[in-house]
Amino acid sequence: MKPFEFYNPVRIVFGPGEMSQLGDLAAKHGARALLVKGKGPLEKLGVYKRAQEYLEKAGLIVVSLEGVEENPKLSSVYEGIKLCRENDLDIVIAVGGGSPIDCAKAVAMGAVDDGDVWDFFAQKRTPENSLPVGTVSTLAATGSEMSVHCVITNEKSQHKYATHSELHLPKFSIIDAELHTTVPKYITACGMVDTITHVGENYFAGDRNTPLTDRIAEGVITTVIGSESILDNLENIDLRNNLAWCATIGINGLTDLGRGAFEYGAHIIEHAISGKFDIPHGAGLAVVHPAWLYYCCEKDPSKFVTFAHRVFGICDADKSDSELGKAGIDALKQKYRDWEMPDSLKALNIDENSFEDIAEIVIADPDSFIADKQIVLDVLQRCK
Amino acid sequence: MKPFEFYNPVRIVFGPGEMSQLGDLAAKHGARALLVKGKGPLEKLGVYKRAQEYLEKAGLIVVSLEGVEENPKLSSVYEGIKLCRENDLDIVIAVGGGSPIDCAKAVAMGAVDDGDVWDFFAQKRTPENSLPVGTVSTLAATGSEMSVHCVITNEKSQHKYATHSELHLPKFSIIDAELHTTVPKYITACGMVDTITHVGENYFAGDRNTPLTDRIAEGVITTVIGSESILDNLENIDLRNNLAWCATIGINGLTDLGRGAFEYGAHIIEHAISGKFDIPHGAGLAVVHPAWLYYCCEKDPSKFVTFAHRVFGICDADKSDSELGKAGIDALKQKYRDWEMPDSLKALNIDENSFEDIAEIVIADPDSFIADKQIVLDVLQRCK
Repeated sequence: MKPFEFYNPVRIVFGPGEMSQLGDLAAKHGARALLVKGKGPLEKLGVYKRAQEYLEKAGLIVVSLEGVEENPKLSSVYEGIKLCRENDLDIVIAVGGGSPIDCAKAVAMGAVDDGDVWDFFAQKRTPENSLPVGTVSTLAATGSEMSVHCVITNEKSQHKYATHSELHLPKFSIIDAELHTTVPKYITACGMVDTITHVGENYFAGDRNTPLTDRIAEGVITTVIGSESILDNLENIDLRNNLAWCATIGINGLTDLGRGAFEYGAHIIEHAISGKFDIPHGAGLAVVHPAWLYYCCEKDPSKFVTFAHRVFGICDADKSDSELGKAGIDALKQKYRDWEMPDSLKALNIDENSFEDIAEIVIADPDSFIADKQIVLDVLQRCK
Repeated sequence: MKPFEFYNPVRIVFGPGEMSQLGDLAAKHGARALLVKGKGPLEKLGVYKRAQEYLEKAGLIVVSLEGVEENPKLSSVYEGIKLCRENDLDIVIAVGGGSPIDCAKAVAMGAVDDGDVWDFFAQKRTPENSLPVGTVSTLAATGSEMSVHCVITNEKSQHKYATHSELHLPKFSIIDAELHTTVPKYITACGMVDTITHVGENYFAGDRNTPLTDRIAEGVITTVIGSESILDNLENIDLRNNLAWCATIGINGLTDLGRGAFEYGAHIIEHAISGKFDIPHGAGLAVVHPAWLYYCCEKDPSKFVTFAHRVFGICDADKSDSELGKAGIDALKQKYRDWEMPDSLKALNIDENSFEDIAEIVIADPDSFIADKQIVLDVLQRCK
């Protein structure tokens, strides 16, 4: 096990109906709130109205940032920063999935900085301060509600870049599965893929003596797969709770500890794709992550044998490590097909002509650990 | 899954040699430190000298509380509080196992309170403030370095009582397995039993739809058992790292989430025993925990079937749930025998004459969820 530091002071308030605590929780950290709203159906469902009421009932002044899109855009971040400054706001509250939450994190970081907030994503500067952030997470997917990560798309340059900082950890996050029951099947499946990918990337990287970290990662994946009947039963609160907690634990740091590596290869490649084509992140991962794993397994199948055995019960003394490892990835890819996720870039209307561009974007990403364009092209060929 | 709140802002600094960070970490939270030292071999090994040097090098004034015993006593807590007040100390640093850490937590809570600190353990009052605490954990056992728990023995009344508060969460904990390599075999095994018991109590209680919480708990137990060769190889750093991280994760809250219960039955009974007889906590648990599990399994074996299967690979279509459940507990008890842990109270020189007294102490414990003395006597009969 490699040395590590773990620090995650997010207060998690978990349970159906717990959104009603939003006002009291927010009031502990601020008096004048920016409410960051997504572009999805939450407005229609009355969720934003309720959020505003809870905040105002607790005495907060509320200013809204409306219409944050999927793959949240830098222009929304600039708009939020402007609102914070003009209205002297002291806390940023996101209600929604990973998009408004990441937008809120970027706004909170930019609002207390004099320069261009994109500098932090381009890794020209390191953030030193942030307004407090609170969240109500309405989607089991990015785990942004308890993570150090923040991903923003610069729509002009088509770059989707990430920052990672303790400053991005929300002061509190409410995870209220009642709000998850209206998420449609396709988006639910995208979230399941995102969660599995978060723990299923670094699992294969770095130091191999990380037995508890491995067990937690496998626990997340088996629990997501064990809850797959949600796709035929979207309103089941027990299953929604399971997926919600898996998404949160899946990227709060625990499943990376001791590996001494941070190799989210499928994420780096998918960010290049969704930054350019604006596809849902989870759908992109359903294609790219298995392809990335096939590539890694060919280099060294040993950990893939463990994965195939523990997650899918695959073991066969007559088969080679390569065959067993590949069988585990096949089983994962089959799950994604069962969940009606795309199984090729073609299914996402992305053709081979763009592969060179995508590979260039990956190599240019300051967050990328992939230095060789040929590796990206190899993986993309497996995604066709 | 039941609603829950999770908040654990302890900064964990994990890795061999990381003790050298003590001074810098402490200096962020205070300038005048109480250094709480255990009675064990750390003084002889020069660990306390090093701790003092790190603290002083970072500019801290250091006053020491010497000789905190196993099952830390209220008199040590009073002495520490006095030192804090006389010397105007602003941070409490514990270096050692669970005993100095729990003592430090109690001192930190008592130093900022005008009344008797025992009131909090007797649950007459609730603590509202605490000095900051930092720890260097030198033993994989209690997990106190990342837990809300604090257990102190009132040596006059022979009561060993616990408090549970967010105030007890250290600001930072250094987990440096280099310091664990000198722990003797018997104490190492006691710690392994303590860790398994922490996750193996509540596992069987409360709500049954807690799949990820269950997987994390099972991961802790299988990792401890998978690291048992440490007992023949006490200086193995990889195995020490595994046990250390299991001990910490095993009681930082994660393995209880969503159960809506807090039923540490073996702990409540063992506290009564070790409060009265001053035996090592882990050795007491090696006897009491399996007995408690046999009692619970007779009432409802269903979860025990899962435990037997997932932890010990026990499954047999011809056997009843009761038989399978019992086989899992048998396998656990056999592990404890393999590790040369006591398997009866007799082996700890405790005879049947004391059972009535022990049962009375359990029922009087304000922290106890066991209301019927007969239950305690039933469990104790299984411990003979």
